[in-house]
Amino acid sequence: MDREQLLELLASVRDGSVALDAAAARLESAPFDELGFATIDHHRALRDGLPEVIYAPGKTPAQVAEIARRVYERAGRLLVTRIDGAQLAALRGALPSVAHDEHARIAWASSQPTVAVGHVAVVTAGTSDIPVAEEAAITATLAGAHVTRHYDVGVAGIHRITPHLTQLRAANAIVIAAGMDGALPSVIGGLVRNPIIAVPTSVGYGASFGGLAALLTMLNSCATGVSVVNIDNGFGAGYIAASINRLAVARRD
Amino acid sequence: MDREQLLELLASVRDGSVALDAAAARLESAPFDELGFATIDHHRALRDGLPEVIYAPGKTPAQVAEIARRVYERAGRLLVTRIDGAQLAALRGALPSVAHDEHARIAWASSQPTVAVGHVAVVTAGTSDIPVAEEAAITATLAGAHVTRHYDVGVAGIHRITPHLTQLRAANAIVIAAGMDGALPSVIGGLVRNPIIAVPTSVGYGASFGGLAALLTMLNSCATGVSVVNIDNGFGAGYIAASINRLAVARRD
Amino acid sequence: MDREQLLELLASVRDGSVALDAAAARLESAPFDELGFATIDHHRALRDGLPEVIYAPGKTPAQVAEIARRVYERAGRLLVTRIDGAQLAALRGALPSVAHDEHARIAWASSQPTVAVGHVAVVTAGTSDIPVAEEAAITATLAGAHVTRHYDVGVAGIHRITPHLTQLRAANAIVIAAGMDGALPSVIGGLVRNPIIAVPTSVGYGASFGGLAALLTMLNSCATGVSVVNIDNGFGAGYIAASINRLAVARRD
Amino acid sequence: MDREQLLELLASVRDGSVALDAAAARLESAPFDELGFATIDHHRALRDGLPEVIYAPGKTPAQVAEIARRVYERAGRLLVTRIDGAQLAALRGALPSVAHDEHARIAWASSQPTVAVGHVAVVTAGTSDIPVAEEAAITATLAGAHVTRHYDVGVAGIHRITPHLTQLRAANAIVIAAGMDGALPSVIGGLVRNPIIAVPTSVGYGASFGGLAALLTMLNSCATGVSVVNIDNGFGAGYIAASINRLAVARRD
Amino acid sequence: MDREQLLELLASVRDGSVALDAAAARLESAPFDELGFATIDHHRALRDGLPEVIYAPGKTPAQVAEIARRVYERAGRLLVTRIDGAQLAALRGALPSVAHDEHARIAWASSQPTVAVGHVAVVTAGTSDIPVAEEAAITATLAGAHVTRHYDVGVAGIHRITPHLTQLRAANAIVIAAGMDGALPSVIGGLVRNPIIAVPTSVGYGASFGGLAALLTMLNSCATGVSVVNIDNGFGAGYIAASINRLAVARRD
Amino acid sequence: MDREQLLELLASVRDGSVALDAAAARLESAPFDELGFATIDHHRALRDGLPEVIYAPGKTPAQVAEIARRVYERAGRLLVTRIDGAQLAALRGALPSVAHDEHARIAWASSQPTVAVGHVAVVTAGTSDIPVAEEAAITATLAGAHVTRHYDVGVAGIHRITPHLTQLRAANAIVIAAGMDGALPSVIGGLVRNPIIAVPTSVGYGASFGGLAALLTMLNSCATGVSVVNIDNGFGAGYIAASINRLAVARRD
Amino acid sequence: MDREQLLELLASVRDGSVALDAAAARLESAPFDELGFATIDHHRALRDGLPEVIYAPGKTPAQVAEIARRVYERAGRLLVTRIDGAQLAALRGALPSVAHDEHARIAWASSQPTVAVGHVAVVTAGTSDIPVAEEAAITATLAGAHVTRHYDVGVAGIHRITPHLTQLRAANAIVIAAGMDGALPSVIGGLVRNPIIAVPTSVGYGASFGGLAALLTMLNSCATGVSVVNIDNGFGAGYIAASINRLAVARRD
Amino acid sequence: MDREQLLELLASVRDGSVALDAAAARLESAPFDELGFATIDHHRALRDGLPEVIYAPGKTPAQVAEIARRVYERAGRLLVTRIDGAQLAALRGALPSVAHDEHARIAWASSQPTVAVGHVAVVTAGTSDIPVAEEAAITATLAGAHVTRHYDVGVAGIHRITPHLTQLRAANAIVIAAGMDGALPSVIGGLVRNPIIAVPTSVGYGASFGGLAALLTMLNSCATGVSVVNIDNGFGAGYIAASINRLAVARRD
Repeated sequence: MDREQLLELLASVRDGSVALDAAAARLESAPFDELGFATIDHHRALRDGLPEVIYAPGKTPAQVAEIARRVYERAGRLLVTRIDGAQLAALRGALPSVAHDEHARIAWASSQPTVAVGHVAVVTAGTSDIPVAEEAAITATLAGAHVTRHYDVGVAGIHRITPHLTQLRAANAIVIAAGMDGALPSVIGGLVRNPIIAVPTSVGYGASFGGLAALLTMLNSCATGVSVVNIDNGFGAGYIAASINRLAVARRD
Repeated sequence: MDREQLLELLASVRDGSVALDAAAARLESAPFDELGFATIDHHRALRDGLPEVIYAPGKTPAQVAEIARRVYERAGRLLVTRIDGAQLAALRGALPSVAHDEHARIAWASSQPTVAVGHVAVVTAGTSDIPVAEEAAITATLAGAHVTRHYDVGVAGIHRITPHLTQLRAANAIVIAAGMDGALPSVIGGLVRNPIIAVPTSVGYGASFGGLAALLTMLNSCATGVSVVNIDNGFGAGYIAASINRLAVARRD
Repeated sequence: MDREQLLELLASVRDGSVALDAAAARLESAPFDELGFATIDHHRALRDGLPEVIYAPGKTPAQVAEIARRVYERAGRLLVTRIDGAQLAALRGALPSVAHDEHARIAWASSQPTVAVGHVAVVTAGTSDIPVAEEAAITATLAGAHVTRHYDVGVAGIHRITPHLTQLRAANAIVIAAGMDGALPSVIGGLVRNPIIAVPTSVGYGASFGGLAALLTMLNSCATGVSVVNIDNGFGAGYIAASINRLAVARRD
Repeated sequence: MDREQLLELLASVRDGSVALDAAAARLESAPFDELGFATIDHHRALRDGLPEVIYAPGKTPAQVAEIARRVYERAGRLLVTRIDGAQLAALRGALPSVAHDEHARIAWASSQPTVAVGHVAVVTAGTSDIPVAEEAAITATLAGAHVTRHYDVGVAGIHRITPHLTQLRAANAIVIAAGMDGALPSVIGGLVRNPIIAVPTSVGYGASFGGLAALLTMLNSCATGVSVVNIDNGFGAGYIAASINRLAVARRD
Repeated sequence: MDREQLLELLASVRDGSVALDAAAARLESAPFDELGFATIDHHRALRDGLPEVIYAPGKTPAQVAEIARRVYERAGRLLVTRIDGAQLAALRGALPSVAHDEHARIAWASSQPTVAVGHVAVVTAGTSDIPVAEEAAITATLAGAHVTRHYDVGVAGIHRITPHLTQLRAANAIVIAAGMDGALPSVIGGLVRNPIIAVPTSVGYGASFGGLAALLTMLNSCATGVSVVNIDNGFGAGYIAASINRLAVARRD
Repeated sequence: MDREQLLELLASVRDGSVALDAAAARLESAPFDELGFATIDHHRALRDGLPEVIYAPGKTPAQVAEIARRVYERAGRLLVTRIDGAQLAALRGALPSVAHDEHARIAWASSQPTVAVGHVAVVTAGTSDIPVAEEAAITATLAGAHVTRHYDVGVAGIHRITPHLTQLRAANAIVIAAGMDGALPSVIGGLVRNPIIAVPTSVGYGASFGGLAALLTMLNSCATGVSVVNIDNGFGAGYIAASINRLAVARRD
Repeated sequence: MDREQLLELLASVRDGSVALDAAAARLESAPFDELGFATIDHHRALRDGLPEVIYAPGKTPAQVAEIARRVYERAGRLLVTRIDGAQLAALRGALPSVAHDEHARIAWASSQPTVAVGHVAVVTAGTSDIPVAEEAAITATLAGAHVTRHYDVGVAGIHRITPHLTQLRAANAIVIAAGMDGALPSVIGGLVRNPIIAVPTSVGYGASFGGLAALLTMLNSCATGVSVVNIDNGFGAGYIAASINRLAVARRD
Repeated sequence: MDREQLLELLASVRDGSVALDAAAARLESAPFDELGFATIDHHRALRDGLPEVIYAPGKTPAQVAEIARRVYERAGRLLVTRIDGAQLAALRGALPSVAHDEHARIAWASSQPTVAVGHVAVVTAGTSDIPVAEEAAITATLAGAHVTRHYDVGVAGIHRITPHLTQLRAANAIVIAAGMDGALPSVIGGLVRNPIIAVPTSVGYGASFGGLAALLTMLNSCATGVSVVNIDNGFGAGYIAASINRLAVARRD
């Protein structure tokens, strides 16, 4: 029940065409998403410029394609993460224009060209972290942010970070993807003042325990200003960075 | 080496009083914090309005008092977390004007009155999460944010959340402290669009494992827009929220 | 907003004393607990006969006493778990009639005598599990169930179980508290058909890891019909058992 | 030794054809399953209407087929979980009429049509949780319960839950399958009074650790009335729900 | 129901004073511990020479004293583990003759002098493992074994082991208590052929995680012939060693 | 240096053909395995009747075949665990007479017929635990024990255990393999007095964590007399049981 | 900015062709790697004789080949770890002379023959640890150390260690790779005085948890002088051993 | 049996006063520590200049004092770690000259003045890590190394590291103690070429899990040349650093 429908109902109450009891019953039983509540959801993508994500694993190719088609129709923007070959094939059948990054295992589409505003920086410690970082970068791009990429800046060779500092400091939010020791956010966090969203990656071996080591490092970061998302969750990090960017960017317009 | 000293050195090079080799040697060996680099740090609090934090555990009362005195002198603003009785006594000897919250175990001082701008919301699931939330709220307040508190809104009684939604949606950033199942950020994350910084607390028993259960819940949150800090790290969450608020608030002034 | 208030508002719409827009605004912004939703909560204890619990840790004595007083006033029934000495003293100041079990660290009160119906059995493996079991037994008693106690029936001496089988099979739900190897629910689960709610306790040492071993045992139970609650969560188990008993007991009346 | 054999032995004692010592020896050494004890097991399925489950992994196709055939012959009802292709082929050779759900990896058969009584609701947070939920739903159906399915009601979009509340509240037991943050039982637990059996699923990635995160969330649920079964254990949850339903349903007949 | 009572019942059947049906009913419902089954338990200590243990934690001083008194009366032998000061005081009130080891926190009593037979060796890696080892040594002594102690033979100084090898090889079973790296059973296991019962101790710090490191080392021992009991479970190890010794010792008498 | 070589050297000292210093140097530098020390190892299999095991994983087929050939030549007895197809093929090339169990993934050979003495019982909770149990049973058989198998006696249907009790009580040692809740050793441990070697198996799912749940259950067993080996380590359990059997069996000869 | 460029800039300052402000600006903004800082990195391999490693997993074959080609051109020495078949094929296309060890999954090349100096010993507990040990041995060899291999010296048969002691004591550093119980470094650490670098391997099963058990053992080693690297990190261990060897070897030249 | 005794025995063989058999028997049974083997241990401290450590926890004050007295008498050098008040008092009774550091909880004594040679650097991330670092520094000092301290150089403010780089690069080994995120060794490891011994400390809160987070970070360090010791094991790190220093220092003398 949207606002118009609510007004219509109230008008019917006022003009007597709907009895009080019937109106009360309808209002009481109305799922609250019909009371202006759920508009957050239905209109979310349009208002925010933030795409709705489809997490592909555990869904059949047909489900992925169908959900994607509906999301794209409604929102004009789409992001599918962790997509596999069969799902991609089905998706392409439904949405031939879909873009795809094989390493990051994501697919996306956007019906209207976005004007990039603000600035989100995406950083990786090593080359193996790039797929996760790309998930973040493409998410932020779809959400309308200008994205700069700073890949393989390592922590073991800390001098590799400095050439990037000017750009990192200019960003409204910085996404940092790192596996193994996950120390990069601590180091960059000591050099910049911007909010950092740290993404532990499952890159590593032995006692990295699938990203747990990097996750713990980031949660225990000595640097203030670092918050953390789930292991390999590039989408989540890119989404948060884009949200912050959106808040910040209005200032400059 | 600050800018003046650098210019002085270069002048000596120009006037020939310092040889090229000697100047090069001095520049090469100059720790980079002397090259304008470290100004981030020294001037951080003043420029950012974000206080420097002193984490008290493991420090002697005398150390706490001395470090606090120096920070306060330089930055005019101070926050000490996890302070115990003896440390507080020593601190009060050095800074009689220091404020203190017994439950949150924090002490703070500010030399100039702050004009609160923007809006940070701080939420707890239960009353036992309040000490952690207060650490966040006071941090954000010291950093210049207007803070609204929404305590004990639970997840088990989800209807207790709705009266707060208008204010939560108006905030630039939301800090949510929750122990036990840590589900509150997932629920609120489904109802708002603002960046959420989730703080797992060590409140709980049994298989909560000192906050680990809540931490994992938050990292795995189905809601986008949720990033996570360390267990009981109210300061970190308040700091990040204040940073985002600072980016956002410029827009409205 | 309850039904009466809703009808009143609609009547005002009908008679024109409230404009459509104003009515719509009020309905849209009405927290959903005002729409008949929250009545679950406010009237829960009365309708269900299930007491509302106050988890004491992390609350000040004054908070415990005040919350307890309000709960008791509204619901006529009260249960406080994990209460310590200072909290108990404060509680007794507010509610002199409160009962207390020192080992189970619970306090409770009930304004009207309950007629016990149905049957909940509470079992422990050892004597050290009794405090947790008492939390369950008193919860179920307060919720109106007839409770039989079967303590220290062990698993290592399986013949100690058999004398209890007739009563266990007659119960509508069985709560089993066990620490160490946590094997008792598996054994009893092979001998009865009733729903079993297993409570791992933190009793044990070494590799029991504070109840984790018993918890895992119970979750992996080979016996069907066993569900599990948190370590030491006697209240939760007693509550669930009482709920099932309530469903079942109607049949016999 | 069944009742008849026991009476026969006692008759032999009475008529002197068996000496006291010999009778005592035989009675002492009689395994207790021969003393009416084991009838629980042999007649369990028939009396309860609850099917016996065969957990397929680790069994050869021939073993699965043979055990299934015998169970089906005796009980007229059969459920095989986690069945793979080779096992299914063998099973179909033995029981051509067996039904099969590819996603839930279960197979089942029932010799007589069941009249569904009572009501069990099965809920999932996402579409990826459906296979586990189907295991629960089919188990409960085989056990004679009327089952309603409420799939993909999420927690991040909490308004998606409300349309289901009426049905959820009408059920005698609710099974909720959820992976990732596992927060859905906490949320629904705050809205209903029925016993909830929570099933953590291994859906998720990163720090979900194969369902551990969801498991811990559920065990630490702030909502009372939630008990938990093993990760992905749809069968166990469906079985418990059906047991509770069976207790409750008698009331209405 | 003991043998005498069973014979009496059968006699009543024979002489007609008890009907067949009544006798059958009584036999069917007889808990099996009454059918000669439970004699294992009641007479266990006497027949085996193995004392029944009372695990003190979680019991009140009065409970400890009362249970101990009854065990001692029945079995003439007693062992209480993890006893604290208050429990010891109560125990001494009930059994003035009780012996006590302060470091091992055990108390014991034996009404008749034991003739030690066979040979159990008890070994520790360091001096801090001695309390656990003493629990094992005293248990085995009470069970009638001749016990040799080999304390602080280390693994870091492997030459310290050799002087003990002759005695270790002569023992029927070897208990080895070790914390920290827990490597001693692996080393001794490579030098002897006797069954080794390894007891990880909680001695250590940092990543010893309360004995977990030693436990895992022992479970993964490259040496065959090593089985493991719970962390700090000296009693269990001593009991098993004494059981093996008892089996072996008959050979030599 | 074997005894003969040592005597030869001493004879050379006596007859003056070797100088004292040269003899001392040779003795000092002699690796101690040459001083009668290592005879444990070289002659171990022959004296003990316990076969040397070859753990196949991580070895090339050629390595497995070559090591096996040498062991078999020296000891006349051989056991290879966790052997895969390629390794088995190579092994059969080297030792055509080798026996093989596909499910237990073991291969073995024995050059002389063994006369079984004593009695080792091998028990499993379910059918999926049989491969691990077979590893134990064949190990014990090769070591000369008479082995009885008691498979699928479950814990959920405890009456299935009783028919086996007489045999279990007659065994010198009992190996019990169980996955899932791992409760069977606790139950049998309460019914028998013999040493039990518990083998957790990796059978299970969800929170069984690859056998960890069963391992913890067994380590925390309430029953005394239970010691534990590594997850799935059937060989280790069979070896220990055979060692105990060997000690015990001498008594009866 | 290298030294030459710095001197050039200072010369321009001296001769007035660059203004003080402009020079200061350039120096301030110069990334510090341009200030002689980064030379560590660029010249590292040449000066140290320590090769730069390429960790292959997560990189495309083309990336591996390209990075390897560049490293080899610059440093004349190359080591690639965890290389798979496709990556190796690509690498061989770029560097036909590359050597390869299939079991250790490493590839390496060296443009100039190295004169081995000093002595690094590499030890394994079992044959399955050899791939990890080879990674260490080849790393140390490429770094110019003379390497002795001591494989399969076990801990269970401790006499197998002694023949190697003389060589182990002569080495400047000892790398020890061990899985399962990981006890070998503790044992050797008690017999030698040299620095030991322990490498836990993922060899083992059950409760070895992928090398975690060995890792914990090594960290808790009772022997002083043992430090630890990541599970299976042969490269790291070989690199550290070579570094120590390099420090030590200068003494003898 | 030392060399003299061996020669004596051989002389007796030569002169016929000891028979070949008797000599062989004595040599065979001689524990190998009597064959020059154990001299490593007895003379270790003197030859190495490395003190023997006494780990105090779990020892009685009397034991600590007695062991310390004997070590000091033999070796003239002593280090006691984790000493508490009562142990210190007892130690001072036995060795009045003992030195003590209250924060590091260590006590030590040295009978002769040491001439410091070489250079070991000890670094901490924060002030709370100093007690652990002091344990390392004093250990290295007692072992004869010249020690420089670099405390509180943090990683969050990376510019604080640079002023120390010259000294760090000049050290033969660097000990780095860090809690929380444990990232400092990764950062310094990227800037220096010397062997780094990383000590995770238990400093931190929440998800630092008593130093586990820092431990994992260090094990997964992206920087080569970092090896790790147990959490809070300052002694171990100092000992290893001193050993490396000893190897290196000979070069420069």
